[in-house]
Amino acid sequence: MTHVHIREVGLRDGLQLVKTLVPAEVKLEWFNDAAAAGVPEIEVTSFVPSHVIPQFADADAVMWGAMGRSGTLASALAVNLKGAQRAYDLGVAKLNYVVSASEEHSLSNVRRTPAVAMEAFYAMVAERKERGLEGSVELSCGVATSFGCSLQGEVAQDEVVRLAVSAAEAGADEIMIADTVGFADPVRVRTLFKAVRDAVGDIPVAAHFHDTRGLGLANVLAAVEVDIHRFDASLGGLGGCPFAPGATGNINTEDTVYLLETMGLSTGIDLEALLALRAKLPGWLPNERIGGSVQRAGIPHLPKSFPSLARAMADPVA
Amino acid sequence: MTHVHIREVGLRDGLQLVKTLVPAEVKLEWFNDAAAAGVPEIEVTSFVPSHVIPQFADADAVMWGAMGRSGTLASALAVNLKGAQRAYDLGVAKLNYVVSASEEHSLSNVRRTPAVAMEAFYAMVAERKERGLEGSVELSCGVATSFGCSLQGEVAQDEVVRLAVSAAEAGADEIMIADTVGFADPVRVRTLFKAVRDAVGDIPVAAHFHDTRGLGLANVLAAVEVDIHRFDASLGGLGGCPFAPGATGNINTEDTVYLLETMGLSTGIDLEALLALRAKLPGWLPNERIGGSVQRAGIPHLPKSFPSLARAMADPVA
Repeated sequence: MTHVHIREVGLRDGLQLVKTLVPAEVKLEWFNDAAAAGVPEIEVTSFVPSHVIPQFADADAVMWGAMGRSGTLASALAVNLKGAQRAYDLGVAKLNYVVSASEEHSLSNVRRTPAVAMEAFYAMVAERKERGLEGSVELSCGVATSFGCSLQGEVAQDEVVRLAVSAAEAGADEIMIADTVGFADPVRVRTLFKAVRDAVGDIPVAAHFHDTRGLGLANVLAAVEVDIHRFDASLGGLGGCPFAPGATGNINTEDTVYLLETMGLSTGIDLEALLALRAKLPGWLPNERIGGSVQRAGIPHLPKSFPSLARAMADPVA
Repeated sequence: MTHVHIREVGLRDGLQLVKTLVPAEVKLEWFNDAAAAGVPEIEVTSFVPSHVIPQFADADAVMWGAMGRSGTLASALAVNLKGAQRAYDLGVAKLNYVVSASEEHSLSNVRRTPAVAMEAFYAMVAERKERGLEGSVELSCGVATSFGCSLQGEVAQDEVVRLAVSAAEAGADEIMIADTVGFADPVRVRTLFKAVRDAVGDIPVAAHFHDTRGLGLANVLAAVEVDIHRFDASLGGLGGCPFAPGATGNINTEDTVYLLETMGLSTGIDLEALLALRAKLPGWLPNERIGGSVQRAGIPHLPKSFPSLARAMADPVA
């Protein structure tokens, strides 16, 4: 059975637009529940100056509380070298960085061109080497606005591939291609992911979709069809980018898991347990738009359609 | 460019669960706006006894008002021979009928087994012949709960194929396979539609998906992949079946058109015009849950991603 790796980004991408400051202990309850439900990777915070996004002022504490849980990779976003240094100091196992392929989005988001933004990734790789952390810290490099940008409009596929290759050559352990503002469609998903995959060789390529125009899960299906098996998703479909007008939520984790499991792919995630965590969100974030079809409609009781769930039911120890 | 035929079912499937009785003139405004936006087929009403669904007490008037518009096929649902006779009397060009593959759903919905329900379709075909309407009235036969049923659970694929073949042999001009309660997933969509398509030969096969668990558009993509080019959809994602617990809305017409057009398929529908109609729905149905991602996020201004829109812009006469 093909395994699909889900990275829960609700604690990072999901919370970055949210006005409610979520206490660190709630973030850790979220993390622990998600880990207990079998989510293999959770992006727990962002190492960003707290005056830029106050939600992540507790990044060190949350990261520290989440690290070292066996079976769950606690990763974090670093927006620059300084952030990466904080993360290295704490001993994180995986660090994610993102460069925007849209010059206008990049300038608006981090006040740097894509080329200059990429240099920060090279610096993170160099620093990892200097610290002798090459065997213990994974570095992921994402390319944002890969399917277009609400500020700039079109983004050239060649530019996305060029940035991905440049990150891969620098030493990235993972390339992540992001449809930051929800412009992707299944045809372009297949084309771009194939192009990136072919260009970066053996390095795993992950997909980060937003459901802005309802095509999120159709795009997941299209990506699976070209052998992409890593997806970012956010519980309740929370998320968006404060510097990308019109951006709305990430694809919904519970609906994504439901899609993949019904298709016979294995996520290793216990959907019932994930829904129990999902049910806590409205209490934690009372003023947010929290979506999700499976949460509303429930899981149908059709064991044959759920190979992984059926297996779990047949063998309660598994 | 491959053409995909969209049948707007909001006026029928969309309104059958709605408590607000929509006046006939509003229904006709809806029909006319949809027709003007280029929707090629609109299911305008249901010929069902008005004590069963009072919403359709005005079926004759609405059908009469919708008929004969050039370029738009005004079809209707008939739930039994009596309904078909009313429709034939009026002079409809296309009549849709549905048999449920789930015995429990069929008994609950129409108090008949699937086999007995299928006999009503044979009677409609016979009556069409007696009236000499074979060249002028199309008959479509749908198979409901084709992917499972919230009452009965599993529905055997063989049973669905058997019903489809039996309708085709009886004289159906179209077979429609419906996921009435939103149990379908892309893998089973590909398998079942391939099986039905292969079994019924040259007769066009249409798909009717509900978005109950968020997989609606992923299922459309999967169906397109096995050469299904006819889809039912409902503006604002309205819809559901009063006799199928847990059923929620149909796939959303405007999001479906957006998906297909971004993929380079042609629906012939002007999405901007469709959104203008969609914007009227909350006023007409103030207490209903009306969804839609494209309505909320808007159409991105990326002409290259919209071959049909780009063409329309380049040639305003088209």
